[in-house]
Parts: sequence; C-alpha cells; structure tokens
Amino acid sequence: MNKSELFRSIREKRSFLCVGLDTDILKIPGHLKSLPDPLFSFNKEIIDATAPFTVAYKPNLAFYESMGPQGWVSLEKTVQYIRENYPGIFLIADAKRGDIGNTSGLYARAFFERFDFDAVTVAPYMGEDSVKPFLAYPGRWAILLALTSNKGAYDFQYIKDSKTGDYLFESVLKTAQNWGSSDNMMFVAGATKAEELKEVRKIVPDHFLLVPGVGAQGGSLKEVAQNAMNSQCGLLVNSSRGIIYASSGEDFAQKAGEAAKEIQLEMEELLRVGLPG
Amino acid sequence: MNKSELFRSIREKRSFLCVGLDTDILKIPGHLKSLPDPLFSFNKEIIDATAPFTVAYKPNLAFYESMGPQGWVSLEKTVQYIRENYPGIFLIADAKRGDIGNTSGLYARAFFERFDFDAVTVAPYMGEDSVKPFLAYPGRWAILLALTSNKGAYDFQYIKDSKTGDYLFESVLKTAQNWGSSDNMMFVAGATKAEELKEVRKIVPDHFLLVPGVGAQGGSLKEVAQNAMNSQCGLLVNSSRGIIYASSGEDFAQKAGEAAKEIQLEMEELLRVGLPG
Repeated sequence: MNKSELFRSIREKRSFLCVGLDTDILKIPGHLKSLPDPLFSFNKEIIDATAPFTVAYKPNLAFYESMGPQGWVSLEKTVQYIRENYPGIFLIADAKRGDIGNTSGLYARAFFERFDFDAVTVAPYMGEDSVKPFLAYPGRWAILLALTSNKGAYDFQYIKDSKTGDYLFESVLKTAQNWGSSDNMMFVAGATKAEELKEVRKIVPDHFLLVPGVGAQGGSLKEVAQNAMNSQCGLLVNSSRGIIYASSGEDFAQKAGEAAKEIQLEMEELLRVGLPG
Repeated sequence: MNKSELFRSIREKRSFLCVGLDTDILKIPGHLKSLPDPLFSFNKEIIDATAPFTVAYKPNLAFYESMGPQGWVSLEKTVQYIRENYPGIFLIADAKRGDIGNTSGLYARAFFERFDFDAVTVAPYMGEDSVKPFLAYPGRWAILLALTSNKGAYDFQYIKDSKTGDYLFESVLKTAQNWGSSDNMMFVAGATKAEELKEVRKIVPDHFLLVPGVGAQGGSLKEVAQNAMNSQCGLLVNSSRGIIYASSGEDFAQKAGEAAKEIQLEMEELLRVGLPG
C-alpha cells in the first residue's frame, strides 16, 4: 500500500486509528481459552467489531512468539483473515527487528513475503544496512523507532550529539530519512511527549508517524493531532489495551467496537479541523 | 548457566568458540533439501561435528523466522537436540529483541521458558525497561548490543555525548552495567574494531563479551584475545559462515568440524598465553 492509498483510506474511514493486536493468552476472556486457536478466535472477533473504525492493525510479535510455533500459526491466520475480509487495511508487524544487512533481509522476507504485512517496525541501533533491506520491497514500509513512549526512552534517545546538538532520536530522524522516502518509511514517535512531536514533525514534515501510547499509556489524541498532523494526515495513532481489553467478558468484541468507535469519532473531528476542504 | 560454569566449560574444552547456526535454506547442501526438516537435519550434523570444539551455539532467529511456523519447529528441535545430547553447552538466541517492559517480558518468556535458551541478544535503543525483563531469570542472560560489526554501526554508535564525551556504545556499556551484573549480562562487541575492544574491556572489565565477525567478516582472533581477554576468559567469539558453510557438499559436517577444530586449536594457544596457571 502506498502513501496516497493510505491517505485515501484515512479519508474514507475518517479515522487514523491503528488497533494493536497485543493478544495475550493470559488476558483474553475465559470462554475462548478452550477453543482450538484462542488467539485467532479472539483476534477474529476483535477485527470484525473494530474494522469499520480502523485503518490499520498492528500485532505485536512478542505475544505470538511467546506461544511457540502455534503462535505463528495464529498470527498467519490473523493476517490472512484481514486480507480476505478487509482489503485496504494497513497491516503492521510490530517486531522491532534489526540485524546486519543479509540477516535483516531474512526478516524482511519473513514479514513481507511469507506474511504479507505492509510494514515492519525496525530498531535503528545498527544503522543503515540493518534498515535498508526493509525498504527494498515496493509498496512496503519500514517503521523506524525514533522516540518511544516508555520510561527507558530517556536512557539513550535523549543523548545530545556533541557535534550537531541533536538528541539521538533527532539524529535517527535526520539520518534515516536519507535511506528511503516518505513512501516507504515511517517513524515511531511516542505520544507521551506531545511537545516533542512538534519537533519530530519539523524534521520529517512529510512522513507518516506511528504514535503509540494514546489511551492506556495516557497520551492525548487532540495534542497529537495539533502537534503532528500534516496535509495528508501523516498520523497512525495506535491503541491496544484500551480497545481489545475494553471488557473481559463475553461482550469483549462489542465493547472493543464501542471503544474503537469512540476514538474514531474523535479522530473524525480532528481530521475535519486539521484537513480543511 | 552461571558465569563460573561457563568459565569451567571454556577451560575444559580449551575453547571460547560460539558457532552461529545461521542456517539458510538457500545455502544448505542440496541433498538435505528433500528431507522432512532440512534446517534441523543440517543443524544436527553440524552440531555433532562441532560440539567437541565449541562452548556455545547461537542460532540467529531471522533464519528460522523466515521459514514461518515450520522454522520455529526446526529451532525448537535444534535446542532440544543440544540440551539432550550436549549438556553444558551455552545456548544463545540471537534475536536482537527489545520492546516496552511488559512486551520484552513476553520475549523473555518465549526464549527462556518455552525454548530453554541461556541467553538472548537484546537491542538497547529503548532503554532499561526493555532490557530488565531478560535479567529476571536466574541463570539466564541478556546480551546487549553495544558495538556491532556491521557498516551501519557508524551511523549512531559513534555519536559522542555532549555531556560526557562518551560514544553512544560507551554510554550503553556504562549505563547498562548498572541494570544487571556480570552474572546476567554480556555485551556484543564487534571484532572488526579490535582497538575499540580495549576500550570496551576498560569499561566492563568483568563482563563476558560476545564477539561476532571473526572469520567471514575478517577480524583477527589473536587481536581480540590480546585486547579483551580477562582472568575468566570473558570472551565468546562467534563464527558462523566460516564453519557451517565450510563445504557445500556431502562432506559439509566433516569440513565444519575441521574448521571448528582449527579455531579451537588457536583458542587453546591463546588461552594458554592469556590465562597462565
């Protein structure tokens, strides 16, 4: 999916919501646990309930990997289910991978060829050759970690370069934007620091930003939009726990749909203000 | 496995060799490809041939992940095979994972509980809470990327902190050694920069270093030992391609064993010089 297709999807659905499929076997409703594939059964119902309000899904790989080979089967079925039933959805593998060139190439092969994801999140520490293989697939994306929303972000991401005066996350944005274009790279930019989003937007005016941390982690959607929306929206805002665990009962899917719809309505308003005309 | 057990294994085998099981379906000998599980069949023969000369194995996860769920089965069988037949081997999942705290916890659960690895390589970009969950398992290890051996290492790892004057990889070493101890943390330190290994060793005198890049990537084993061996050896030096693809014929395992033995003999001599008495 290219950038203008993603933007069209955002306009059509009046939403820039990404639902994080952080599906934890310990947290899904009890009545699903006796089914043959609990993770997939949970995802399927969540997807059916939230798809009208959502432009992207983002399974975090850790949740599937922790289940062993069966977890990968659940993931594969989830991706196929979305592809078959909801064409036009942007699919992100939240994998935070990154290795030397030929090895990153294998990760890219795994996520783009075997799984048909549109995008993979990638860690920047190992530099250009660890990221480039993800940029070699037309219509696919690398989403590079720049500013994350966790406490540990302060350990290294705010180290100031003695030559340029840039924080490390700014160096990542400035350097990495030369590796690809706004048609095959996005950046993760944490919403717990809405002020910094302005700074990020200044450095990468045209790139899409994947913003985690709205909802359970406490960011304000309005601030995110005010600080970082561009003329093609340029935002995918993720919510995971606030949607998929909105209820732990048999009504979990219905409540997830309601939670997604609530965010979508807020986004619709923010798009109306932020993208006039 | 704790540090003194690892050191004992190194003394007994007179080797600090780690064999990288970067098992690529495109590179294994043709006669294995028709078997039901080519990756495992290849690994099994490589392991049998190299185990006498090796203290550690390090499958790189990308190679298994690129095969889909079946790749994880091959990996699981490989780990079990080593555990059952070669007790005392140190097993590293070269996964370069790292995510927000609760999510890193799931990766730790996957690699330590489901797979019984001794160690996982972890990327430092997201800071303390992304690393700590890997340190919560007694006898298990996090191996943090500090200085990698690829070209992209120069993009960010050499950014100099305006406050401390430290390069980013030095900041990672200094900050992260407070998160654990030399009994549950190691660091990746690239061998293409033997001079920098001295600097790394100064910062973390007691920690084990996992050194990639000897062999196919061109580092000199002797320089590595001279610059970074400590009183408990403190080194695991990895070789992947130079060993496992020493031959592409039916004699691949025999040639792998010979290549491993050659390195072991060199290591035996370096240990004699570096660990007198």
